Formats: sequence, structure tokens, C-alpha cells
Amino acid sequence: MILWDYWRSTAAYRVRIALNLKGLRAEHRVRHLRRGEQREAAFLAVNPQGLVPALVLEDGTVLTQSLAICEYLDETHPEPPLLPRDPIARARVRAFAQAIAAEIHAVQNLKVLNRVKALGHDQAAANAWAHDVIAEGLAACEALVRDRPEASKEGPFCFGAAPGLADIALVPQLYNARRFGVDLGAMPLLAAAEAACLALPAFAAAAPERQADAE
Amino acid sequence: MILWDYWRSTAAYRVRIALNLKGLRAEHRVRHLRRGEQREAAFLAVNPQGLVPALVLEDGTVLTQSLAICEYLDETHPEPPLLPRDPIARARVRAFAQAIAAEIHAVQNLKVLNRVKALGHDQAAANAWAHDVIAEGLAACEALVRDRPEASKEGPFCFGAAPGLADIALVPQLYNARRFGVDLGAMPLLAAAEAACLALPAFAAAAPERQADAE
Repeated sequence: MILWDYWRSTAAYRVRIALNLKGLRAEHRVRHLRRGEQREAAFLAVNPQGLVPALVLEDGTVLTQSLAICEYLDETHPEPPLLPRDPIARARVRAFAQAIAAEIHAVQNLKVLNRVKALGHDQAAANAWAHDVIAEGLAACEALVRDRPEASKEGPFCFGAAPGLADIALVPQLYNARRFGVDLGAMPLLAAAEAACLALPAFAAAAPERQADAE
Repeated sequence: MILWDYWRSTAAYRVRIALNLKGLRAEHRVRHLRRGEQREAAFLAVNPQGLVPALVLEDGTVLTQSLAICEYLDETHPEPPLLPRDPIARARVRAFAQAIAAEIHAVQNLKVLNRVKALGHDQAAANAWAHDVIAEGLAACEALVRDRPEASKEGPFCFGAAPGLADIALVPQLYNARRFGVDLGAMPLLAAAEAACLALPAFAAAAPERQADAE
């Protein structure tokens, strides 16, 4: 497998964690997002969305969108599971992951901040946009974890005693939150889940600073 | 079941279609998004994200995030399936749905356009933002459908002979695209899938204009 990657891509970071949790190896190829390499024609032929991550399977099939890739890895390599078995519990975990991927990250990624700047705003205004989107979104995510059913309150992960798709979404988003100076003090449950994750080799090895293209 | 709904919410529209495809009924309760009813304390107690849709199950469990709700409905009511069986085919459909939910809709919904206006821009600038996000995002989605494997090219739906999660994401987004004047002429595959969907009662009955709260 080939993972099209970038060290500081929040979405690629999710897939790196999932691959590690499943014990899978991929060749990492890098598109430098700040240099716009993801918009080069050769890469658009791989992923017409012009986004990393993209996972190229052995038969040449290209999978895109980080959460869809994680679900694929979970379906084809069921152990350890990234989702609980109960349909309601699965829905809670997926909702949490989507609350991060769609309501937070999609609204404050590099592409969107470039749109803000194209409206005539400076980097400080773009950073303030990202800060506010992340702070508001994570406050809602803290509530989603606070409201989890008793059965999964044992923690220390977002929804129980083992890490899963929610934690895969959380950890890169908290890394991103710190880049934009978001105060995480009011999010003790998210912080506790993150600490438990970062103690695991699968999460630690996926960290941006541990990637070969880290600057 | 209770569906917290709003006639012109793109995400609620997805859940209405899914419920109809599964032959399920829910009591519709409305939060008027333009009047800010989704931010009232009583509703935040239901969904701390302050978003519709939210689906309240018989036991009081609240499910949020439209794609997570659709997957829950699919897992608990398997017929007709919203996802194919093959893991790669499932990943393609999920990626398409997420490309719409995260890369397009999340970046141009009412909440984000209000952020654009809060930066000092007028409604016309906010509408232009939405137009550009939708036009660029749908062009990538047309490519995702164009690049589908031969086996699913039979159509007329996004990924084969039956409607599924991709079509559930597509139809509300094309409705939304027209509101912002996006030219859909260069997206023949998306247009063909939409036409096939709108001919089905499950999709037609979910249309915004058919809802009790339509204005």
C-alpha cells in the first residue's frame, strides 16, 4: 500500500494512527500542502479531490477521505476493532468522529483559511477564524463524551476502555488546536482520552514530528 | 422516533431520504435555523452541537450527525441496503458522501456563511463563498463518479443500479447548489443520478418543499 501523506495534515494523521493500530505498513509518499503539491496534475490523477490522505491499495485502487479509509481498514482487518459492536454505540462514535472531521477540521483547514485570506484578511484573522471554529467545535465534542452512556464512562478513551475511531479523530484535532492556541482547560474528558492515546505506540509513532517530512 | 428537522437543512434532508428508503416513520419536530432555535437551551440539552438533524430513538437515545444516523438506520434496518457489500465499494460510497458532507456542505452551511458575514462581508460575498465551495467540491465529486469501476457504471445512481448513501448525500447538495446559482452543466453523471433519485417516492417526499414547515 501507498499512503499519500503530509506530516501536518490532520486527516493524514488519522490514517497513520489507524494503520498503526491495525499493525499495517504503507509506503509513505508526501505531497507538501503549503507548496501546493496536492494540486499538481500528476496527483490529481490519483485523487481528483486534490487532498491527502489517499491510500493506494495493492491493485491500484485509490481510497480517499480519512474516515472512509479508517472504516475500510476496520472492515478488512477487524482486530483490534475501531468501532464497538452495538449499533447505537457505533453511531455515537461515528457522530463524534464526524463532528470533528466535518464541523471542525473541514471548516478550518489550510484550504478554508486560504479562502478567508482571499477575502482580504491577514494571517492573524485567518488564525482567529481557525481558533474559534476549533474552540466551539471541541466544546460540543466534550459534551458528546460527557453524555456517553454509563457503560462507556470507564474510559480512559473517548468511548470506553480501548481506543477507536473517536480517538483517531480526536488526537490530531487536539494537536491542531494547540497550533492555534485553543485553551483546552475546559475539556478534561478530551484531554484524558488524548493522554491515554499518546501513551500508546500506535498513536505516538503517527505524530507529526515523528514523520520523515517533518520540518 | 422523533426527527429534529428543518425543511431547508441539507443534513436533515439526507436523514429524511434515508428514513423513507427504509420505510420508517418519525415524528418531525422543527428547529427554525434562521431564527436560531437550534441554539436554545432546551434544544442544546437534546444536541449539544446545536445542529439538526438529531434523531431521538424510542428509549430516548439521541443520535446526531446525518451520515452516522444513516449508517445506524442501515445497520438496524438492512433492507434495502444503503452501502454495497464489498469493502472497497463501501469505501468509495462513504468517501463520496464525506466529500459532500465535509468538503462541501460543512464549509458553506448557514453557520459558516454567518462567520463570513461576521468578518464584515455582505450577503453577496457570503453567497459567492458558498457558490465557489460548492462548484469546486461538486467538480471533484463528478470525477469520483466518473472514476467508479466498470461494475458500477451501469448506473443510473451514483454507484450502481440502486440508490444508496452517495445518492442520499448528492440530492440535497444539488438542491443547495441551485440555491447558490451553481452551473451544473459540467456534471452530467451527478445530474443523471439526481434525476433517477427524484423519480423515486422516497426522495420526492423528502424534498424541502414537501415539508410541513416549508416557507
